[in-house]
Amino acid sequence: MTAVPYLALIASVLALLLAYYFAKVVLRADQGTELMREIGAAIREGAMAFLRREYRWVSVFVAAMFVLLLIVPIDGRPAASFAYLMGAVLSSVAGFVGMRIATAANTRTANAARQGAAKALPLAFKGGAVMGFSVAGLALLGISFNYLLWVKWIGVDQAFQVVAAFGLGASSIALFARIGGGIYTKAADVGGDLVGKVEAGIPEDDPRNPATIADAVGDNVGDVAGMGADLFESYAGSIVAPVVLASLLVPVFLDGDSLAGSFGDAEGLLMYPILIGALGMIASIIGALFVRGREGRSLSGQLHTGQYVAMALTVVFAIVGTLVLFSGSPTFGGYELSAPIFLAFTIIVGLLGGWAIGFTSEYFTSEHFKPVKGIAQQSETGPATVTIEGIAQGKLSTLPAVVLVVAMIGLSYLFGGMAFGDAGNEIGLYGVALAAIGMLAVTGVIVAVDAYGPIADNAGGIAEMAELPPEVRGVTDSLDSLGNTTAAVAKGFAVGSAAVTALALFKSFSLTAGDQVLLDINDTAVTIGLFLGAMTPFIFAALTMSSVGRAAQAMIVEVRRQFAEIPGLREGEPGVKPDSRRCVDISTQAALREMLLPGGLAVVLPLVIGFIDVNALGGFLAGAVVTGFLIAIYMANSGGAWDNAKKYIEAGAHGGKGTDAHAAAVVGDTIGDPFKDTSGPAMNILIKVMTIVSLVFVPAFL
Amino acid sequence: MTAVPYLALIASVLALLLAYYFAKVVLRADQGTELMREIGAAIREGAMAFLRREYRWVSVFVAAMFVLLLIVPIDGRPAASFAYLMGAVLSSVAGFVGMRIATAANTRTANAARQGAAKALPLAFKGGAVMGFSVAGLALLGISFNYLLWVKWIGVDQAFQVVAAFGLGASSIALFARIGGGIYTKAADVGGDLVGKVEAGIPEDDPRNPATIADAVGDNVGDVAGMGADLFESYAGSIVAPVVLASLLVPVFLDGDSLAGSFGDAEGLLMYPILIGALGMIASIIGALFVRGREGRSLSGQLHTGQYVAMALTVVFAIVGTLVLFSGSPTFGGYELSAPIFLAFTIIVGLLGGWAIGFTSEYFTSEHFKPVKGIAQQSETGPATVTIEGIAQGKLSTLPAVVLVVAMIGLSYLFGGMAFGDAGNEIGLYGVALAAIGMLAVTGVIVAVDAYGPIADNAGGIAEMAELPPEVRGVTDSLDSLGNTTAAVAKGFAVGSAAVTALALFKSFSLTAGDQVLLDINDTAVTIGLFLGAMTPFIFAALTMSSVGRAAQAMIVEVRRQFAEIPGLREGEPGVKPDSRRCVDISTQAALREMLLPGGLAVVLPLVIGFIDVNALGGFLAGAVVTGFLIAIYMANSGGAWDNAKKYIEAGAHGGKGTDAHAAAVVGDTIGDPFKDTSGPAMNILIKVMTIVSLVFVPAFL
Repeated sequence: MTAVPYLALIASVLALLLAYYFAKVVLRADQGTELMREIGAAIREGAMAFLRREYRWVSVFVAAMFVLLLIVPIDGRPAASFAYLMGAVLSSVAGFVGMRIATAANTRTANAARQGAAKALPLAFKGGAVMGFSVAGLALLGISFNYLLWVKWIGVDQAFQVVAAFGLGASSIALFARIGGGIYTKAADVGGDLVGKVEAGIPEDDPRNPATIADAVGDNVGDVAGMGADLFESYAGSIVAPVVLASLLVPVFLDGDSLAGSFGDAEGLLMYPILIGALGMIASIIGALFVRGREGRSLSGQLHTGQYVAMALTVVFAIVGTLVLFSGSPTFGGYELSAPIFLAFTIIVGLLGGWAIGFTSEYFTSEHFKPVKGIAQQSETGPATVTIEGIAQGKLSTLPAVVLVVAMIGLSYLFGGMAFGDAGNEIGLYGVALAAIGMLAVTGVIVAVDAYGPIADNAGGIAEMAELPPEVRGVTDSLDSLGNTTAAVAKGFAVGSAAVTALALFKSFSLTAGDQVLLDINDTAVTIGLFLGAMTPFIFAALTMSSVGRAAQAMIVEVRRQFAEIPGLREGEPGVKPDSRRCVDISTQAALREMLLPGGLAVVLPLVIGFIDVNALGGFLAGAVVTGFLIAIYMANSGGAWDNAKKYIEAGAHGGKGTDAHAAAVVGDTIGDPFKDTSGPAMNILIKVMTIVSLVFVPAFL
Repeated sequence: MTAVPYLALIASVLALLLAYYFAKVVLRADQGTELMREIGAAIREGAMAFLRREYRWVSVFVAAMFVLLLIVPIDGRPAASFAYLMGAVLSSVAGFVGMRIATAANTRTANAARQGAAKALPLAFKGGAVMGFSVAGLALLGISFNYLLWVKWIGVDQAFQVVAAFGLGASSIALFARIGGGIYTKAADVGGDLVGKVEAGIPEDDPRNPATIADAVGDNVGDVAGMGADLFESYAGSIVAPVVLASLLVPVFLDGDSLAGSFGDAEGLLMYPILIGALGMIASIIGALFVRGREGRSLSGQLHTGQYVAMALTVVFAIVGTLVLFSGSPTFGGYELSAPIFLAFTIIVGLLGGWAIGFTSEYFTSEHFKPVKGIAQQSETGPATVTIEGIAQGKLSTLPAVVLVVAMIGLSYLFGGMAFGDAGNEIGLYGVALAAIGMLAVTGVIVAVDAYGPIADNAGGIAEMAELPPEVRGVTDSLDSLGNTTAAVAKGFAVGSAAVTALALFKSFSLTAGDQVLLDINDTAVTIGLFLGAMTPFIFAALTMSSVGRAAQAMIVEVRRQFAEIPGLREGEPGVKPDSRRCVDISTQAALREMLLPGGLAVVLPLVIGFIDVNALGGFLAGAVVTGFLIAIYMANSGGAWDNAKKYIEAGAHGGKGTDAHAAAVVGDTIGDPFKDTSGPAMNILIKVMTIVSLVFVPAFL
């Protein structure tokens, strides 16, 4: 039993070693021509500069929270403050390392693409895997280290509050990384495209466009660093949530006593989520080693193989681990864990649920299915009908996602109760919490596949800017389109786990508040909270979309200025270069300035409402979690569908490039940019930050 | 005390007499040229034909519900079945009469516009007022009649359930009228515009376009009949909800006994909402008589005067009526109504809240304020940025609306308690229910002003089609733009009251269910319900938007066919006429077919969930009400803002008509069409239908 945290430590060290090994392989590869080196350096410098400045700003916020956690009467002080700091620091480190390697991998992938896709694929994948395993490894390391460090000193129940503070630290970084990165990437993309493609009439990624480097930087800042911080937080949250919930549920349901008394008995239930995290990590490492880029085999098959191997092994490990850990149907308090295998089933429910949500995302966003084809069809009658249909399909896509989440909640609740021979008992909530960890057990390999996409995309951009032969761009494009499909699966895991994790955190919040909170929907304070909470994701979407608009305008003004003031730039005279640094600088400043309001609100709102009325806060969280989940799905899928409808037309449907239909689809794609890359993904973090802030501060509210 | 229902009967008869008088005035006015008569007749026939066919389809649904209410064990059988039928029939009658007069008023307004705005304004207003006072008069008549009819026979508590069934009848009609009408009007509008303006290059409302008549029919079907049925339902609901809630709350809080025992005491509290309805009606009648169209005075001032007089009188009447009804601080059960004036304050809170929500709608949708100007500004960079900014502003507009609704709920809850000398007591819920009736007390005059808009719009269309001189079109345009501002206020009342009414109905649902429902958000069934409920408005929006798209496509195909097959049509050769009837027919069929799925879902979903698990239904309703309210505001305001951004540009901003900026704004406007006229308005009814179905059927669920 006590071996579990050590097993988790070992698994995380293995993950970090794998990341180190992959990083070596990437850095050893050839960077290509002089021009490629130069472009790669510009992108890397821009991305790292943004990250440094972002961290500088966020460190002020983190310091303030650190002090707040020291002075406000929460549980587990002062250890919680330090755990918070550690969560923030480890998340930053994972982001920094992942970004450093991703920006190294893109030029090297472009260079490898000159020798074909089979050479380029493993490089791009390994680049992404460094991020994936840094994220998962450092998160699991932090959680198990904190637990082992504090459990002896401050007692078990306090130790779990400390673990929650670690999660809050991870959330703080993720919040700003997601919002800032999301605004950066789309401001550069939309702003650059509108002047470059529309006004100056030069193609995308053309070196004459001063915003091209900023656009490439944005891909890394948003899709690599933002997503990495997001998944660090998701992964940490998915372990923190069931661990904390178990520490609260177990004493309440198993003997009604305080945790300290029953801990000896219930230790297995508390360690179980950490065990699954460790086992999933080992499965992910093995899965990642299966992606090799063999010649003559389908590229998508190889990427999928990695995922499926990791998932299948997780299932096997979970069953075996469960039966070993709970052999002999142990008794906890008065309850017998008569059928432990049902706990493994909740893990499997989560894993399959995450995969299924990913599949529905793919259905709604891939050009192989009806929704995207329907949107492309509407392009024949102009941009308005494209937009209407895209919004309608995105909203419709909430149906299967909600049905799957609801089924996951219901099934895992049922299995949780059945494990104790009592289906329908409230102890089933333990099962709901486990579903979240099941969903994210294979985070390492999922992030790897997801971060692979922007690396391939960037490689294409570099190939264009470095004027490599068109075949090379063809290779990177094929790698890129592959990434789009696999990324849909990753998004499904991220958004599904956000809902289930937030739910588990919410239950923990109510349990911590105990009898002092009345979460009856009929209570007027709860009703008011419900309205305010449901409103928050709408406001958050509005603020982030407007931010992209304003930041894009700043970029447009600068690009126009350069085309007007730098003689020969538009005409592409040899030796005339745009001032890319200034564009990078403008995007950086705008993104950092614009992230403050939405990011600050996410932390301040639950604190303000909580100090006024805890019942209202309960309603607020419920409203925000549910609506935030729906808007996350809707915006991500509408955006993805427009993107692929455009690509579908570019591939020749409805007349192909240059037609009115294509122009209409481009409008849809541009509308979808902030949907899928700024506002939508920020929702996942919003709902978790708000619940975890509430959970950590609930003792202070009461 | 017992005089109150009779006072309500008298007020409703006065309202109907006013409607009759206004109808006479309208029908007596001159219809203009032969061509105008012809066009007017075509529009009237198309609109009435749609209404007849819609009623035929809906009558099947109503008959099925009638039988269901007879056989399922609900309260107040069989009276409830007949009250249901009466609610449905009276709503249909109000719609029929209002539509008949509105379609008569449009040609006559066009003709009067030849003599200037001062002649045209009162005609258009009177046309709208027939709808307004038919709606309010018949609703109040039905409620007071049903109450008086049944109270003696089946006892007080059952009588209130019968009143709820009346509300359900009204909702059934409103649901299908809103959805069907909303799909019809936008299918004809979008479909006609896309072929006419975009492909054939002929202006809007050109008689050569086969869809022009269908478009005009759509304005009546959607904006007049749909909105009338909507407000019949809103008004009935706003009286039914507090009446039923009072009948449930009063015995629970005042003496804990059953209603039958305490009724003698509490009668005043039960009659009070009906009294306010009657007083508000009289105030509205007086207000309506103030709109006269005097020469030399500002037109908007005259329309506003009617509204403000009605509101001010309602405040005065409410204070006096309250003090008279509750003179001497009567005691109910053990509670003394020590400060009855606070009950009048809840009415005033509702009235001002509705007005304030309307004002925020105006802020976000009028070209005089920053949001619309910002959207117009974004048109300079194309349709994508227009769309992004419009969506962002619409979502942002939920902030003031939610803050106002939450403030209304909080204040009226507080005042409700203070009336009994006990602020914070649960009896304060009575105050929340009263706020809803306060909000809609002036329905008559509000609907009048709202229905005025489409009449003025139609008059403009007729002037165009009948080839009247451009000055006439100028006059009708000025009347129309006036209608847009006043309509924003009406929309504010409609959406604000929907939230408060649905809330009151929801509380009634829980009280009826009593101890058998546990609405703790932490309960797993409630959580699942919350997710499903919050999802429903998203699906509803998706379905209705897709319906508009499909119906518009059917129209596009037909218009293209006519231009291709009727020689000389496009060129406008004399004597060549399009086959308008076929277009009207296609819109009618498409709208009726498409309304079945969303309409059916709204009724079936709560029934299915309720029979499975009543706790889940509670969560479902809470999620649906909150999210539906947010989406209603967002879609209505985004749509309105795009519409006015386009008009702002057409008036000369950013280069005016014919520029790329204008083309971009037109795309925004077209996207906004189903937002503001189909999906958005349907949300108000969706949330009320679902709560009222649940309320009526709750005895059967348990």
